[in-house]
Amino acid sequence: MSQQNQRHDLGRLVVRGADRPGIVASVSSALAEQGANIVSLDQHSSDPAGGRFFQRTEFHLPDLSLRFGELEEALTQRLGTEQELEFELIEAKRNKRAAVFVSRKDHCLLDLLWRQRRGELAMTIAMVVSNHPELGDAVRGFGIPFFCVPVEKGRKDAAEKDQMNLLKGNVDLLVLARYMQILSGGFLDELGVPVINIHHSFLPAFTGAGPYERAKERGVKLIGATSHYVTEDLDEGPIIEQDVIRASHRDSVEDLQRRGADVERIVLSRAVAWHCDDRVVRNGSTTVVFEGPR
Amino acid sequence: MSQQNQRHDLGRLVVRGADRPGIVASVSSALAEQGANIVSLDQHSSDPAGGRFFQRTEFHLPDLSLRFGELEEALTQRLGTEQELEFELIEAKRNKRAAVFVSRKDHCLLDLLWRQRRGELAMTIAMVVSNHPELGDAVRGFGIPFFCVPVEKGRKDAAEKDQMNLLKGNVDLLVLARYMQILSGGFLDELGVPVINIHHSFLPAFTGAGPYERAKERGVKLIGATSHYVTEDLDEGPIIEQDVIRASHRDSVEDLQRRGADVERIVLSRAVAWHCDDRVVRNGSTTVVFEGPR
Amino acid sequence: MSQQNQRHDLGRLVVRGADRPGIVASVSSALAEQGANIVSLDQHSSDPAGGRFFQRTEFHLPDLSLRFGELEEALTQRLGTEQELEFELIEAKRNKRAAVFVSRKDHCLLDLLWRQRRGELAMTIAMVVSNHPELGDAVRGFGIPFFCVPVEKGRKDAAEKDQMNLLKGNVDLLVLARYMQILSGGFLDELGVPVINIHHSFLPAFTGAGPYERAKERGVKLIGATSHYVTEDLDEGPIIEQDVIRASHRDSVEDLQRRGADVERIVLSRAVAWHCDDRVVRNGSTTVVFEGPR
Amino acid sequence: MSQQNQRHDLGRLVVRGADRPGIVASVSSALAEQGANIVSLDQHSSDPAGGRFFQRTEFHLPDLSLRFGELEEALTQRLGTEQELEFELIEAKRNKRAAVFVSRKDHCLLDLLWRQRRGELAMTIAMVVSNHPELGDAVRGFGIPFFCVPVEKGRKDAAEKDQMNLLKGNVDLLVLARYMQILSGGFLDELGVPVINIHHSFLPAFTGAGPYERAKERGVKLIGATSHYVTEDLDEGPIIEQDVIRASHRDSVEDLQRRGADVERIVLSRAVAWHCDDRVVRNGSTTVVFEGPR
Repeated sequence: MSQQNQRHDLGRLVVRGADRPGIVASVSSALAEQGANIVSLDQHSSDPAGGRFFQRTEFHLPDLSLRFGELEEALTQRLGTEQELEFELIEAKRNKRAAVFVSRKDHCLLDLLWRQRRGELAMTIAMVVSNHPELGDAVRGFGIPFFCVPVEKGRKDAAEKDQMNLLKGNVDLLVLARYMQILSGGFLDELGVPVINIHHSFLPAFTGAGPYERAKERGVKLIGATSHYVTEDLDEGPIIEQDVIRASHRDSVEDLQRRGADVERIVLSRAVAWHCDDRVVRNGSTTVVFEGPR
Repeated sequence: MSQQNQRHDLGRLVVRGADRPGIVASVSSALAEQGANIVSLDQHSSDPAGGRFFQRTEFHLPDLSLRFGELEEALTQRLGTEQELEFELIEAKRNKRAAVFVSRKDHCLLDLLWRQRRGELAMTIAMVVSNHPELGDAVRGFGIPFFCVPVEKGRKDAAEKDQMNLLKGNVDLLVLARYMQILSGGFLDELGVPVINIHHSFLPAFTGAGPYERAKERGVKLIGATSHYVTEDLDEGPIIEQDVIRASHRDSVEDLQRRGADVERIVLSRAVAWHCDDRVVRNGSTTVVFEGPR
Repeated sequence: MSQQNQRHDLGRLVVRGADRPGIVASVSSALAEQGANIVSLDQHSSDPAGGRFFQRTEFHLPDLSLRFGELEEALTQRLGTEQELEFELIEAKRNKRAAVFVSRKDHCLLDLLWRQRRGELAMTIAMVVSNHPELGDAVRGFGIPFFCVPVEKGRKDAAEKDQMNLLKGNVDLLVLARYMQILSGGFLDELGVPVINIHHSFLPAFTGAGPYERAKERGVKLIGATSHYVTEDLDEGPIIEQDVIRASHRDSVEDLQRRGADVERIVLSRAVAWHCDDRVVRNGSTTVVFEGPR
Repeated sequence: MSQQNQRHDLGRLVVRGADRPGIVASVSSALAEQGANIVSLDQHSSDPAGGRFFQRTEFHLPDLSLRFGELEEALTQRLGTEQELEFELIEAKRNKRAAVFVSRKDHCLLDLLWRQRRGELAMTIAMVVSNHPELGDAVRGFGIPFFCVPVEKGRKDAAEKDQMNLLKGNVDLLVLARYMQILSGGFLDELGVPVINIHHSFLPAFTGAGPYERAKERGVKLIGATSHYVTEDLDEGPIIEQDVIRASHRDSVEDLQRRGADVERIVLSRAVAWHCDDRVVRNGSTTVVFEGPR
């Protein structure tokens, strides 16, 4: 059975709100009443007393596409109106539409393209946008549109306008796969979809530029990478995933960069995969991650 | 708040049976009807179509001890009679009563004694039994009774009888912490409680005796340990947990044994911790493990 | 400084023989006498008393290419004739010439092609040979020749003859990147260069076919991959590298295969990288691996 | 053969100085001239051109104890006078004499005591000193002297004087096993032996107090521990070893502390083991670690 078929008639319900007794049973029952069979359920309370509640439920419902509107309406009544819970209802078979921004380094981009081709990521890459032309051929070789939007000094506004024209309305997700420009707060606001970045250090260690240089200088024994949602506060967005590998006195800065590339691409691909499976829920400046396989 | 208090009024419901639509909502509702608030819920279906269903639910219910009998009765009606599900209802504050069997090597035993003293394991070690006297002082230093039951050649039956007299009725769990004798099928049957063993290899590689010697000979690059439930088929019982560490050509057999000791004790302690938190459910010759932190 | 330049005038000396006092100083001095500066040195004695000795030395010698013959002669005299040691002398700038055999699964192949393009592997892939045509375009996209040699039932001899015609004299290494055919002993003998394979299990567990199916059935909690030199005894050749990842009851056989693909390609690429850097020395049915970075 | 016997007649030579051609051969020959057989050799150049050179050599020399003075003299001539290298010559059978400072948390202390009893650490714990009395019984149970030196507010000078009286001349190493007081620069100077600390975060992330609280707040997905040499600059000393474990949104601060305890003790014990085997050489604000097994 193909992955596509496995996801047929499979839905996801992601709920959040104030915690209170009976909330798991209440959400479960709301689905059961509609004939949905719960396949998987994860929940989290940030604090047993007066905390925030998060639940991700996967369910099977025959003819889900046909019955989607009706189901959404019923849940709005039962969860939203009666219980003041926020929720998202998703058809698993609908891939997220994503754009990838990249500069010159290809390792994170290629890992995404390759995993997407293998069917490991529930997303459709609508386009790749770069401030440099070098990676155009590699991207188009995967059958994906590539657009070059140079960012000239002092003309970032113009570049962001061009980027916005490409993205607006076309994507549900923006992935920064070693894109070496900072996006303005205005751009993030207008875009209005989640933006996932990969930072080449184990945050909060070595925020800012040159993390491998500074890791070498400090003599750390592990180097890492961090994938996080982008906010206006640089390197401060909610962390989705992190991992590390061993380093030693033998590694030059170039060695750290080369070896770090492996952990960067693995961490970014994991974060994107979990996001696309609706496993990541923001909770203020942190995340709740109902992990899939690593 | 102490761990003990955290577990006050906390219950666990472990359910298994034939999978079918609506089963998660049905179990959740059965608890909610009794006023229980679900704190955590894990479930697994061995096969979406016609498989086995497993669910572990932690819930909070005021005055759980007082209402335990009443709750059990209600669940028997709702789950057992109406839906043909097997279930276990557990008060989290009740520690499992355990015996530990050991021979001469102390590393697994000490890790258990030490973690238990730190409050990391939801068990009470009722006694340690060894076929050798050497570890008596160390055990009694923890305030735990130690019994020496020698196993003389050809007189294993007599030894098992003595062991049974010590255990019968007194324990909910038997842990073999590098106990170098094979327990008979008759003994296991009569005892009637789960028995957890640690095997000093990554099963199914190197079953039987001398795994480190054979790992050295074969030139493997990782050595491991396996904790499993004991069945009559030696080294074939359901696996609970495994882990590995790196080995190299530099390691002698003695090095492998010494370093393997670290992974043996970690794997056994994890398996015991998860068992005592009712996170492990047997499924034929395998297990479903709703993992806690590693 | 580019990697290529870093390897200019860099040589390697790999020595093996019977261990005896003074052997490290003796090899070091033989190099120093010729004006070579030792950059890195690893040695291993299989047994302090009467064991086998292994040493890998990297050195810098101005005009190494010009002086190669002279150096080899001097070492033959000092190490070979006087001390009965076997040795190999290698110029680091000379890449190993490799062929890759593959069937239909592309993950191991692509990882090798990609790392080679990034300059991470000291090898030149002279050709890719497959018993199926599917991967031709992907390979040629990297500018590497692709040959399809079908292996028809009962006509393996003919296929091996065709394969030998392609390889003979053209390669220093053959890599089996998920090649699903068994090479005959005669073929291995005639080829006369090392052959590296990736086996999709943590050997010696699950030798033979269907390892993921059997891992699922046995309920193991880690799955692994093993890279080894190929010998006539299937799955028994000297192990170069192994690694594992976590599995759980939630993983179907297909999940294990998909996730195992990640560990397979990492393990194979590491084994190939270390081999090409002359870090792997065979010692009977095992290996001595002077590890580079993982 | 016991570990003690294995280390009989085994010596170590740790050399550092300005790098230059021929230096490895030169040190090797100096040992060989004295009849020493090199068992193991590690070296490192911080920079191929004009960097610092580090070499650790283990050798076997019959009657090492008797010939120690003579050997030291010869090496002083050959390495020190002629080549301006610094070196340390050590008999492997001589354990480092260590003191351990601890406050109330016992996990790091117990791991050291236990591994020392098992013969895993080449050190003799001469005494344990605490600013609190609670751990006295546990320490004395291992047959090791315990001294309580309270540190009253505003009277740290007096406490440091008492501590100095206990340590001075009696130890080669001081280990801070979760000692919650800062040692003054004057104390460190006067003591004049290396001081190893364990910090409960992955430095340089979360320097200072309350690292687990801040890790929870920042939402990191891994928590770590760092062992380093103590300098006057708090949390800035040369790092010896680091490791991490996974954390998630489910972990409370108390969970992080409890689980972090496992990685703290493992990291500290590794750092101490490597230091006692003379595997750690300081290089300015970093270290060169010729790693033993992890």
